[in-house]
Amino acid sequence: MQALEGIRVLDLTHALAGPFCTYHLQLLGAEVLKIERPSVGDDFRDFARVPGWEVSPSFIAVNGGKRSVTVNLKDPQGQAIVQRLAASCDVVVENLRPGAANELHLGWDDLRRVNPRLVYCSVSGFGQSGDMSRWPAYDHTIQAMAGMSWTGGDDDVPSQGRAFSVDCFTGYVAFAQILGALVRRERSGEGQYLDVAMLDASLVLLAVGSVRQLITGDNSSATQPIVHDRPTVAPYRTTDGWIWLSANFQNQWEALCRVLEAPELLSDARFTDPRARGSHSAELKSELARRLAHRSAAELEGQLMAAGCPAAKVRTTRDVLQMPVLRERGMLQSAAVPGRAEPVVLVNAGFVADQDGPALQRGVPALGADTDAVLGEAGYSENEIADLRGRGTI
Amino acid sequence: MQALEGIRVLDLTHALAGPFCTYHLQLLGAEVLKIERPSVGDDFRDFARVPGWEVSPSFIAVNGGKRSVTVNLKDPQGQAIVQRLAASCDVVVENLRPGAANELHLGWDDLRRVNPRLVYCSVSGFGQSGDMSRWPAYDHTIQAMAGMSWTGGDDDVPSQGRAFSVDCFTGYVAFAQILGALVRRERSGEGQYLDVAMLDASLVLLAVGSVRQLITGDNSSATQPIVHDRPTVAPYRTTDGWIWLSANFQNQWEALCRVLEAPELLSDARFTDPRARGSHSAELKSELARRLAHRSAAELEGQLMAAGCPAAKVRTTRDVLQMPVLRERGMLQSAAVPGRAEPVVLVNAGFVADQDGPALQRGVPALGADTDAVLGEAGYSENEIADLRGRGTI
Repeated sequence: MQALEGIRVLDLTHALAGPFCTYHLQLLGAEVLKIERPSVGDDFRDFARVPGWEVSPSFIAVNGGKRSVTVNLKDPQGQAIVQRLAASCDVVVENLRPGAANELHLGWDDLRRVNPRLVYCSVSGFGQSGDMSRWPAYDHTIQAMAGMSWTGGDDDVPSQGRAFSVDCFTGYVAFAQILGALVRRERSGEGQYLDVAMLDASLVLLAVGSVRQLITGDNSSATQPIVHDRPTVAPYRTTDGWIWLSANFQNQWEALCRVLEAPELLSDARFTDPRARGSHSAELKSELARRLAHRSAAELEGQLMAAGCPAAKVRTTRDVLQMPVLRERGMLQSAAVPGRAEPVVLVNAGFVADQDGPALQRGVPALGADTDAVLGEAGYSENEIADLRGRGTI
Repeated sequence: MQALEGIRVLDLTHALAGPFCTYHLQLLGAEVLKIERPSVGDDFRDFARVPGWEVSPSFIAVNGGKRSVTVNLKDPQGQAIVQRLAASCDVVVENLRPGAANELHLGWDDLRRVNPRLVYCSVSGFGQSGDMSRWPAYDHTIQAMAGMSWTGGDDDVPSQGRAFSVDCFTGYVAFAQILGALVRRERSGEGQYLDVAMLDASLVLLAVGSVRQLITGDNSSATQPIVHDRPTVAPYRTTDGWIWLSANFQNQWEALCRVLEAPELLSDARFTDPRARGSHSAELKSELARRLAHRSAAELEGQLMAAGCPAAKVRTTRDVLQMPVLRERGMLQSAAVPGRAEPVVLVNAGFVADQDGPALQRGVPALGADTDAVLGEAGYSENEIADLRGRGTI
């Protein structure tokens, strides 16, 4: 069995961090009931949509495998539906504005009365209490706040880092800690409430740089791009793009010279050890640049790696997704999407297991595709379902 | 009880990704037995060490709370010790060169014979099998390979992103999936083998951009820094550093004008709606820059956030670590370190629980500090321990 086979997740999330969390729960076998607004759905269905596509790439990327159930949470009858679903669920995840779940009678205190073994996780920008809890939060404003946008000097224009990295990592922290709470529940029988926030999560990935900063007192950033002044650890242009060399140690330097068929570099007194190479940095850089300009990065990568010198062809996203090893290891998988004849390729859970590994259970759901089935399973009759639909509750 | 109270982890990792994983297991209450080479220990004890400190910041950041046990894994008697410890452990994590654990008789097949309920996780650059498995892997070469270093054009010099982000995230994937395997073990009684790789893990955090790229066919990078051409979503200089504004929507724009006490901007026909603001981008940028230059980012942040306009003071790492909310939420904690009278501050697990949340059980261990105690608990007599020490096995 997969880790979460038979585990049901009530998913009250929208946009990115929350859905990223429940996507990963699904990949481990959980059944995810994605609650969406009738007619409208998760705003991300429309966010930066591509012409010819019913739903946006951002939505597709993080909602595969879920069941879509439309419920109007502002309607007391809608709230009653969700409360009934919570009774048969193991996990609730929500990323509404802090306080909103309580106002809707769908907070931790409401739902654990229905189901004391519930693991309930709230995801927000700054946590569920305190002055900052109502502050709005976007991925890039949290990046700026958390030290990720600082570029090294008071006069340097800050920059926004990788797209959605804080959102996605926050969702991943929620995913991991829900698993932790499920381990605890299996061992103690008790549910747990988890309060996951973007600002807190961003610090986790920066822990190493932060501790260094705390110890040295150096007022820089844990996330500043690293500038290497060593020509043996640097990108070089080749005939087919850039190659990033990383010949830190003597044996790696020797492997590099061997692969470049450059015994003259190896025997050159200016480059004989790290100290010497450091003292003749500019000369070495131009020697390497000249030799690498006529080589192929794609070929060199394999040759250098096999010889023990870390090196990588600098890839675009398209390039990396075409690497055969990713398909061989099951890191990509197909999923049907609404309104398209051809399936799309989604990123899987990022690991391999000896058995019962991660997998999508189904495609990306059309809005409300599973409303009737899920309500039927929860005991609503066909007449009740028709009535709820007539009132706009579902 | 904490989620992993009573769970024992046999930690055969060094450097960064592996120790980052077991650090997080420890924060949830697991007992982590960190196996280190006699006399030398984990190489990271020394990596970029700061004068006056016995162990490096990088080691301190990810090894708090663990017990250090010295064992020579090349010595058959050392292997026997680890095999005996594995019998009483729930989890094994290793990031040796692929194949090395088997050569040392400490692989999954060796240890599950001793303990069939074991969750065993291997962490590597490219996975445990196939041609690439022996390739060396550094954080920044994986960044280059995975599309994180590409800066947008064939002629643009690639750049290395945030320090150790791939290493740390890979460790975090291992952490999460070990929790998943523990949920599975509690429910099925079975152990599991997990093969976690840096290249695979890097893709997980890039899933949104990757899917967009796959769908649009656009040959760019999922990780390229985003350049905003809208003056309402941009960094501005103030009297005390930069503020990053993010007034995407009309209500946010109105909040911005209100906080800036600039009704003339709000009523200006050039800036009346997103389309108009887009057509007068340069003028708006200079209007905003002029007004913001005389304001304080620290004050504006709170005023704008409270008014509903996302905005953040651009912080350095030092700045963010001083935010009171992080201490209030328990995101930072003190730990003793070898050779220092004063404790250091470490980053906690990045979430809050209603009870039994994350915590360090002890400080950062001196090399071999727990060898005698752990071997004693495993049934070795004082004489045997003395003998093993005399032979250099421990």
